[in-house]
Amino acid sequence: MMIVHTIQEVRAYVREQRLAGKTVGYVPTMGYLHQGHLSLIEAAKEQCDVAVMSIFVNPLQFGPNEDFDRYPRDLERDAALAAQAGIDLIFAPSVDEMYPAGNGKSLTHVDVEQVTTGLCGASRPGHFQGVSTVVTKLFNIVLPDRAFFGMKDAQQVAVIQQMVYDLNLPVEIVPCPTVREADGLAMSSRNVFLTDEERAQALVLSRSLKTARELVASGERDVASIVAAVREEISGQPLAQIDYVELVQFRGLAPIQKIEEPALLALAVRFGKTRLIDNTVLTTH
Amino acid sequence: MMIVHTIQEVRAYVREQRLAGKTVGYVPTMGYLHQGHLSLIEAAKEQCDVAVMSIFVNPLQFGPNEDFDRYPRDLERDAALAAQAGIDLIFAPSVDEMYPAGNGKSLTHVDVEQVTTGLCGASRPGHFQGVSTVVTKLFNIVLPDRAFFGMKDAQQVAVIQQMVYDLNLPVEIVPCPTVREADGLAMSSRNVFLTDEERAQALVLSRSLKTARELVASGERDVASIVAAVREEISGQPLAQIDYVELVQFRGLAPIQKIEEPALLALAVRFGKTRLIDNTVLTTH
Repeated sequence: MMIVHTIQEVRAYVREQRLAGKTVGYVPTMGYLHQGHLSLIEAAKEQCDVAVMSIFVNPLQFGPNEDFDRYPRDLERDAALAAQAGIDLIFAPSVDEMYPAGNGKSLTHVDVEQVTTGLCGASRPGHFQGVSTVVTKLFNIVLPDRAFFGMKDAQQVAVIQQMVYDLNLPVEIVPCPTVREADGLAMSSRNVFLTDEERAQALVLSRSLKTARELVASGERDVASIVAAVREEISGQPLAQIDYVELVQFRGLAPIQKIEEPALLALAVRFGKTRLIDNTVLTTH
Repeated sequence: MMIVHTIQEVRAYVREQRLAGKTVGYVPTMGYLHQGHLSLIEAAKEQCDVAVMSIFVNPLQFGPNEDFDRYPRDLERDAALAAQAGIDLIFAPSVDEMYPAGNGKSLTHVDVEQVTTGLCGASRPGHFQGVSTVVTKLFNIVLPDRAFFGMKDAQQVAVIQQMVYDLNLPVEIVPCPTVREADGLAMSSRNVFLTDEERAQALVLSRSLKTARELVASGERDVASIVAAVREEISGQPLAQIDYVELVQFRGLAPIQKIEEPALLALAVRFGKTRLIDNTVLTTH
């Protein structure tokens, strides 16, 4: 396993693999790896000859009042975990390597319409512009055959898929299932910020998603009723502050009134200073 | 020489060339080829093993009141000229092939700041968003080693270079000199629209650029004076309607008061319904 910090080095590595006829799988991350990330490495190793991971906390996708500075970072720990999981190369660039103009800024941006308007796009203005811009850059640097993303950020997956389709990016996006703790909490690098009490109350997220699935299984199709039930269940926890609970069409994330096709129930909830997201796909059969 | 119409075909062709160890040069055009385009093919053939040209009149870069519908098109004539000049493959996609969502629209856009604000960016809102979006798509489809652009649209070259730099697109941009008729008129597909009288008066463009170069050679450094002299010379032609005359820093196209580093004098002028552009680089030594 190698760790490189420059664009030139990762390009040289990937070029060499290509010349040897090998396919390249790619796992973009912001580091502070958990079981969710490791499952993406596993998928990449299964589907490709070599697996490259990037670790880059991208300033462009954090708002001015968000947690860029306190986002957890530990490259040594990450490298050990990724090596164990079988990663072949870690690309860990500095902010200046990715944004050489300085200040972590870029004159060029990639914007995706429609799929970015609701959910996290509404409460984090500029977030998805930062995501699509950095992912375009990373794809152009790594030039992978396949890239692996966790479904925990379902909207991110939808945005990247739309962008890859629209810009003809020569990469296949592979969405992978959310990995959860034994008690149901979705794995997240931000979980380390939770106090014991917050963590206990945060279990309401996966419980409320289960409630919604049960409502749909018992015949409920009305979006407003399902959203109300989920909001009520979450609000039962005194430390929970709901950012949003939205139920939209899975394909394209368009607003709906009734569940007919597969739908995405997504939520973002704050516990203290920590904002957690989770989601589930609701189907009628 | 082959002509293909689908993304799949051009990708298959380029993949085959790569496997054979060949480098790929790329000339993006909107067709209706003239000597300027053919000089780009020559440069591509000189610097690369194979040369690919695209012919696509991109609806995304035309404003609602611009000349998308009447832009001249003649694929048969273009194919004969390009074959003569030594092109290996022409990619001539339909609007639906490039924008399968329909209506020639895309949910994803690429935007470049600063270099797009003045010159044609000011008088053609949305134009450079359309250019950078389609060029990103075309680069991702063709995946060339080098791409060749004429300096007649100097701002377009600046925008593409900034975008390639910011998005880490794996392609080298090669700017090539403007090609002119014997009497000085810059080659343009739109020249066919000029009446004899308009064409005769349009010679003022290259003449006024020469005047500016002579002023600088004789020691003039004041931007306002040079622009005023150029505007006055152009206004002497009764059919000329000036869209803009701007003198900016060559690198980054930032506004300047005095010429110190290389500067770009660029202009756009209408003759009847036809809008022509031209430019020259002004240096102090």
